[in-house]
Amino acid sequence: MILDPRDALRLALAPRSIAVIGASDNPNKIGGRPLAYLARFGFRGVVYPINPTRNEVQGLRCFPSLQALPEVPDVVVVAVAGELAVAAVDECGEAGVALCILMSSGFGESNPEGKVREQGMAARARARGMRIVGPNSQGMANFGNGAVLSFSTMFTEVAPADGPVGIISQSGAMSVIPYGLLRARGVGVRHSHATGNDCDVTVCELASVVAEDPGLKLLLLYLEGIPDPWNLAETARVARARNLPIVALKSGRSAAGQEAAKSHTGALASEDRMVDAFLADHGIWRAQSMVDLVDTAQLYLKGWKPKGRRLVAISNSGAVCVLTADAASAANMPLEPLSPATQAELKTILPGFATTTNPVDITAALLTNSRLFGAILPPIARDPAADAFVIGIAVAGAGYDVDAFASDTARFAAETGKPLVVAAPQQSISDRFKALELEVYPTEGEAVRALGQFLSHAELQQAAKFRNASVPNRPRTVGASTMLDEAASLTLLAACGVAVARHTLCLSEAEARAAFEVLGGAPVVVKGCTADASHKSELGLVRIGIPDAASVAAAYREMVGAARAAEITLSGVIVAELVRGRRELMIGARLDPVFGPVVLVGDGGKYVEAMPDAQVLLQPFDVGQVERALRRLRIAPLLDGVRGEPALDVAAFCRNVVAVGELMCDDAAGITQLDINPVIVGARGEGCIAVDAVVYRESNPATLSKEIR
Amino acid sequence: MILDPRDALRLALAPRSIAVIGASDNPNKIGGRPLAYLARFGFRGVVYPINPTRNEVQGLRCFPSLQALPEVPDVVVVAVAGELAVAAVDECGEAGVALCILMSSGFGESNPEGKVREQGMAARARARGMRIVGPNSQGMANFGNGAVLSFSTMFTEVAPADGPVGIISQSGAMSVIPYGLLRARGVGVRHSHATGNDCDVTVCELASVVAEDPGLKLLLLYLEGIPDPWNLAETARVARARNLPIVALKSGRSAAGQEAAKSHTGALASEDRMVDAFLADHGIWRAQSMVDLVDTAQLYLKGWKPKGRRLVAISNSGAVCVLTADAASAANMPLEPLSPATQAELKTILPGFATTTNPVDITAALLTNSRLFGAILPPIARDPAADAFVIGIAVAGAGYDVDAFASDTARFAAETGKPLVVAAPQQSISDRFKALELEVYPTEGEAVRALGQFLSHAELQQAAKFRNASVPNRPRTVGASTMLDEAASLTLLAACGVAVARHTLCLSEAEARAAFEVLGGAPVVVKGCTADASHKSELGLVRIGIPDAASVAAAYREMVGAARAAEITLSGVIVAELVRGRRELMIGARLDPVFGPVVLVGDGGKYVEAMPDAQVLLQPFDVGQVERALRRLRIAPLLDGVRGEPALDVAAFCRNVVAVGELMCDDAAGITQLDINPVIVGARGEGCIAVDAVVYRESNPATLSKEIR
Repeated sequence: MILDPRDALRLALAPRSIAVIGASDNPNKIGGRPLAYLARFGFRGVVYPINPTRNEVQGLRCFPSLQALPEVPDVVVVAVAGELAVAAVDECGEAGVALCILMSSGFGESNPEGKVREQGMAARARARGMRIVGPNSQGMANFGNGAVLSFSTMFTEVAPADGPVGIISQSGAMSVIPYGLLRARGVGVRHSHATGNDCDVTVCELASVVAEDPGLKLLLLYLEGIPDPWNLAETARVARARNLPIVALKSGRSAAGQEAAKSHTGALASEDRMVDAFLADHGIWRAQSMVDLVDTAQLYLKGWKPKGRRLVAISNSGAVCVLTADAASAANMPLEPLSPATQAELKTILPGFATTTNPVDITAALLTNSRLFGAILPPIARDPAADAFVIGIAVAGAGYDVDAFASDTARFAAETGKPLVVAAPQQSISDRFKALELEVYPTEGEAVRALGQFLSHAELQQAAKFRNASVPNRPRTVGASTMLDEAASLTLLAACGVAVARHTLCLSEAEARAAFEVLGGAPVVVKGCTADASHKSELGLVRIGIPDAASVAAAYREMVGAARAAEITLSGVIVAELVRGRRELMIGARLDPVFGPVVLVGDGGKYVEAMPDAQVLLQPFDVGQVERALRRLRIAPLLDGVRGEPALDVAAFCRNVVAVGELMCDDAAGITQLDINPVIVGARGEGCIAVDAVVYRESNPATLSKEIR
Repeated sequence: MILDPRDALRLALAPRSIAVIGASDNPNKIGGRPLAYLARFGFRGVVYPINPTRNEVQGLRCFPSLQALPEVPDVVVVAVAGELAVAAVDECGEAGVALCILMSSGFGESNPEGKVREQGMAARARARGMRIVGPNSQGMANFGNGAVLSFSTMFTEVAPADGPVGIISQSGAMSVIPYGLLRARGVGVRHSHATGNDCDVTVCELASVVAEDPGLKLLLLYLEGIPDPWNLAETARVARARNLPIVALKSGRSAAGQEAAKSHTGALASEDRMVDAFLADHGIWRAQSMVDLVDTAQLYLKGWKPKGRRLVAISNSGAVCVLTADAASAANMPLEPLSPATQAELKTILPGFATTTNPVDITAALLTNSRLFGAILPPIARDPAADAFVIGIAVAGAGYDVDAFASDTARFAAETGKPLVVAAPQQSISDRFKALELEVYPTEGEAVRALGQFLSHAELQQAAKFRNASVPNRPRTVGASTMLDEAASLTLLAACGVAVARHTLCLSEAEARAAFEVLGGAPVVVKGCTADASHKSELGLVRIGIPDAASVAAAYREMVGAARAAEITLSGVIVAELVRGRRELMIGARLDPVFGPVVLVGDGGKYVEAMPDAQVLLQPFDVGQVERALRRLRIAPLLDGVRGEPALDVAAFCRNVVAVGELMCDDAAGITQLDINPVIVGARGEGCIAVDAVVYRESNPATLSKEIR
């Protein structure tokens, strides 16, 4: 009896017994490969081939059916097609199998009927306490114990070696391409799992169990969608607790990619910046490409504990020094000068024309004297200005003592314990550095980029640890929603603690005149209030700076006329104070179908769509996170005041954003979307005021909506 | 007698006779390597070792001195040190040698005295009609004729093969690192030249001669500075005339990189965006890193004539399709759906769950039927939606007919004649595609990026050809310059055809009142006019919207007071019309020490420094180029009007920018810098008006500067 539904996944990673339904003698067939791999890669549990037409398969006794087995196997691989597959899975469920790996295709990936069939299978399995990986799964492979239940061609082509890396993907190709690229770099891979259609077990749920493997030092994920962010958050929580870094390649960045992902795995498109925000919040590094996914892997396996980003670069080529400095700047790694004492010591070793600041340019003098390299390393090792190193050996060979360079570098790396990468374009050089377990890239650009990713990810993990990002709720299903007009929107926001402009919704000229007087006789704003249009200024429904009651009355008539011309219905005319401040910002919020309540902050005004400058905040967040988001905006320099201007009241704005965030999390409020633009922010101490807003919510509020003419 | 100073460079690329001063028997010494290489790489001309202590060097008769040779050699390599080197070069000049390659170091790269010594040598050589490559040059290598006058270790480590690529660099390392990386990719390299300190012949001048080699299909440059843009422009002109693409890696993008470049080659720092603009204007692709420099090389050698950027992607992995679509979007390559006819044809070939739009996902069905791949290519070849192709073979091996995939692809590539790249992470696959001369990258990201660079460069070359960028003048030397006050600046600009706001410089309250009346009684702007400060608003020297004469007089007094408080001198108080328009833009201009007159256009207003949004224009440019620059701005969407606004009068603004450009090119005007901000741009047909400006010029104009109290 399995209580935790993840226990079946734990068992699937280390099964005691395995059956293969549709077992084949041909190791190149889907039903043959897993048997061949189990034998070849040393699986020590019991293996039961099942095929009613055979007595023996690949040297093992073959059974006619599941019922004929001497025991109920922990895991069953189903490699038969169509209705036979469905029947086999159902039979497994009935028999009490813990987990079934369904390799057969022709389900949800083929057509809607297939989707229905796989959902039915999953529901029946759930009812019986069985888990399903697949259908359309290439299988699971654990090289730590030989439980290689996969039909991937890759494990035939590229020999496995157990190691500290785990890879999980829906796609079969993406579960093994990183495997192949890492193996080519000499890195061992323990886990390579492809979950297929994810009708029950998803990539993210499986990852949460793989992350428990104490032998892992790096977890790689390939994702086309994140339908269950709560599972990914749980994976991140498990990984954070043991400092296991996770690097994810989430494709579908572009519209074209999302379209292709929809055809491939049926992934639901998400706004890419929300994916960015979610992964960052949880300390997961987002790789930009397959190269990013694997190029940095080796750095994670060294056990380095980086203390900062200050880079020291050393090369025998001045040009490599220049390119390294450029690459370091691009990766936000400062090159601080070595201390005067270190420089003085280097000057006694290197020729006069060498450079001793940072980068250190040994120059071609290295050809004449190979000892120079080993001689400069000890003083540099003692220098406090270095958090990490790049060693660039541009060219060497006949005339150079390359073996000494490599062993000097290895000793230096061991002594400092700090992150160190080598750039060596010549294979004869890189081979000798690699032989001493140094991390070598062909060019300084690749070396610095990989190092930068490693250091940035360490910072991200640290921040996530402090933040302790919670596991999000499954977002509630949202029905149709209705747009509230401006007056209703502002009233609702004010009730939630958002500061809004003083205003009155007027239903007659007389009310408008009275509202002007109530506001104290200063110039006012007059706006048509409607739930029929979200952009009012284009329709002539906004007049700013109306100076007297008579003009307010005239503006009232103007609004009524403009609404009639635009064929929209007004719920009244708003007379509002004219708010002055220093900058227009905006607050937006959405109920994302995947990530739930999402808040956006950014520059405000008329051009938020034409020239967007916004940042995403996922729940939960506090004023500190809002401020950090504001500091990432293009307009960030304005927050502190430029050219003699006072600083903005950022604190007040952040409090309003948090209030909006809380409103979005209040299911009872039923808010599905809102846009507050502009929020006029004053100088520090002056606060900020929302002067226009549109709120959408699920049920139409009955108040405030009186039609006027 | 050499008339064209470039003739000596042509001779250096194909010398009839070569002498080496400081010839050594040891092939690992600087004076030994060139002799060894000339013998090993089949140089057919005459070689004269010179060394007074030997009769024979490396099997050749050795001469005691230059005078002792039976003829004056075309080229002499100088490999002796210090004063001996200077004497040897002078001797070569006296003897009538055409070109001297000075390998010796210890000159400009070591200390200022060395700089003086090399400049003296260059001057004496010039007077005698001899050219110098170096000092501190690693040498020149032409594998087309074996004239390998270099001491690089690389040619020992990595065997050369003559081919269609030329590489030129000051740095020795950067002349051979691309060589090594290209050779590792199987690409042949003809030229690899390292010019060292460039005391006479520069990288760019040598490039203009190498570009004449009809055997070249690609020219690669490594640059740390561009001290002689006229030579680079000439190289680009020669290359354009024969469709020879040039890819340049210009380092020193960052402040840290520029600092390192200063130590390395003494390169003068340039604003990086001006380098970008210069290279683009001349059709030269700017590589971002060494990988960019070499990764695309093979694509330039295919003879493809790309017609567009529309990509068709084909893979046996849905995930590779998704990642390819993302990469294509990032590289601005649209994936258009295949035509209905093509899709119908593909549907008859592929299984029902395969995707036939674009990308084409063959799916894992390829494992069952390797013929699918060859079958879908002919219909795709006939489809009009494709300008270029990516073929991704994610995984294959046992069970797949990889040889058929490769030969099918090769046939398809030959039939279409369109650019085609392959992504194959498994070496066993990529080897078989490479064997058929297909261009293979490990991942789809790298394949698409390289293809995107190739296609973008083709467009850049085409644009440069139409533009026919001229060879720039050497910029004139500029003395100290003086800031003109606003009134003088506006007057000067108005005289050159720039539309400026109506204004009067007033020296008394009475004049200010009168100026208000002259402007017609509408609200005006009152500003303190001074040459002591360029930012006036912080000092309280700007008042906008003053409605009547009395207030204008009061503002006059205010300005005088504010100037006194700020301890600056006013040349008067400006009363100007209050210009209204749709957007504030700006026009800036500089006299760049390298590139000469440079004009900047961008968003205007108070925050141009805090949030810059500007584009660079190098001379010569016309209104069309100004408009294209505006279209690259962040604010570009506003030019055509958004949210119901009218379009801006872009044409009027562009005419003003061209007028500024002409002013900057007028040496007599002596303008060294100017900033017109804001230029208030009206709706189309309304024109644009400069309302504030600061001009700097060489000689201080005597007028307009009367001190007032």
